[in-house]
Amino acid sequence: MDIVADPRDMQERAQQWRAQGLSIAFVPTMGYFHQGHLSLMEYGRKVGDKVVVSLFVNPAQFGPAEDLDRYPRDLERDAALARQVGVDVLFTPTAEQMYPPDYQTYVEVGDAAKGLCGVSRPGHFRGVATVVCKLFNIVMPHTAIFGEKDYQQLVVIRRMAADLNLPVKVVGRPIVREEDGLAMSSRNTYLSPEERRAALCLQRALTAARRLVSARKSSREEILAVVQQVISQTPHTRIDYLALVDPETLAEVPAVRGEARLALAVWVGNTRLIDNALLVESKPCCV
Amino acid sequence: MDIVADPRDMQERAQQWRAQGLSIAFVPTMGYFHQGHLSLMEYGRKVGDKVVVSLFVNPAQFGPAEDLDRYPRDLERDAALARQVGVDVLFTPTAEQMYPPDYQTYVEVGDAAKGLCGVSRPGHFRGVATVVCKLFNIVMPHTAIFGEKDYQQLVVIRRMAADLNLPVKVVGRPIVREEDGLAMSSRNTYLSPEERRAALCLQRALTAARRLVSARKSSREEILAVVQQVISQTPHTRIDYLALVDPETLAEVPAVRGEARLALAVWVGNTRLIDNALLVESKPCCV
Repeated sequence: MDIVADPRDMQERAQQWRAQGLSIAFVPTMGYFHQGHLSLMEYGRKVGDKVVVSLFVNPAQFGPAEDLDRYPRDLERDAALARQVGVDVLFTPTAEQMYPPDYQTYVEVGDAAKGLCGVSRPGHFRGVATVVCKLFNIVMPHTAIFGEKDYQQLVVIRRMAADLNLPVKVVGRPIVREEDGLAMSSRNTYLSPEERRAALCLQRALTAARRLVSARKSSREEILAVVQQVISQTPHTRIDYLALVDPETLAEVPAVRGEARLALAVWVGNTRLIDNALLVESKPCCV
Repeated sequence: MDIVADPRDMQERAQQWRAQGLSIAFVPTMGYFHQGHLSLMEYGRKVGDKVVVSLFVNPAQFGPAEDLDRYPRDLERDAALARQVGVDVLFTPTAEQMYPPDYQTYVEVGDAAKGLCGVSRPGHFRGVATVVCKLFNIVMPHTAIFGEKDYQQLVVIRRMAADLNLPVKVVGRPIVREEDGLAMSSRNTYLSPEERRAALCLQRALTAARRLVSARKSSREEILAVVQQVISQTPHTRIDYLALVDPETLAEVPAVRGEARLALAVWVGNTRLIDNALLVESKPCCV
């Protein structure tokens, strides 16, 4: 595995691979790899002749009061893990290379970026869309692979790729969870042991919602009431948002008709966690 | 020459050409070709194995009170002219194909898009940057060729291509003028015979400025005073802006030191015309 820091070097490699008819799979990350990241890389290994993983803690997607400075980093461990999975290039640009002093271009996605995390993290998805657009142009992937934990991010990037006619297939892959159900996240390292236990309420809430829908109680009110109840019973938590949305547009829906996505963001102590689940309308089984 | 309307069809052709190792030269236009457009296509014919010309009157770059509806169009004549120059593909998407109903992504360039035409045409360069980003992704050119008449547009697109790491070389080519000096523009067709004569004041003003700089009078005040004088003496004219700017950043400069760009926008009757010239500091010739 090569570690490449220079965007031009990376882009030249990508161009050479494309000229050789090789397909490129790409996993953009902020590093501090867990099994969720590794599952995306493994998927990339299956679909691409070459697998590129970018490791870039993107300043443009952090708000001024957010955790840019303390975001966990461990390049040596990350490189070892990526090598084990069979990644071809770990792309590690610096912030100065990605945003030189006269930098001034931003990509903005509209409606899909407005609700959910877009409310409590203004500018976040502008930073995400911009850096992913840049990364796509540098790495020139045929397939780009994202985890479904950051579900709104996945939708925003799909929207951007379609709108800007980017020749990239954007693939979302299932959330990977710890044994006890907590969605894997680099930010889980912020949690104290007590908060770590409290954090299980996110998955419990999603499970309760799924059970409700199986029992054909599928209105937004019923679902969000149960979710709210589960979380508010848990110490150290504060709800940022709960939302039942259309899986493609992220517009709020009044009930689970066909499919809907239940998304939530919850503060556990000083750490903001997100999680989500697909809810599928339960049909009478034997008519 | 093929006429291709479908963006996917165009993108597939581009991908096939790239896989065959062919280089692509691209000239984005709004059609109604004059010798200025044709000179860009001829240049493309020299530098590219394949030459693509897009013809798209882009709604996103017109303000609500602007001339989108009456912008001149003549596809048949344009196709004949492009064919004569040896263009390979004339790409003619519809507004519905470029901006489907759920479209929501825009590319915005900062400082370079703020002054000059950015003041009197708010949103114009957002529309330009967005459509050119889309067109670059569809046509996948190695070289993209723009006329220097729309000088700010050229700078904005250069900035966008660099910032978003687009693998495209952006080339600016000299303004092509009518025999009497008027910069060629599809909008010249709007002019009455009387206005057509008045429109010569733009070129006269630029020439007067150049003469001034040759005589080592190179301060912003001196230059703009002469330009203003030439134009205000001409009937049917109203100045939108006059500016002496850095050729790369478009920041205003106090004098011609090294090189500067003199840019102007003037209403002639109901038609807004732009023109510009490179001014080069005059050095003592024999020291």
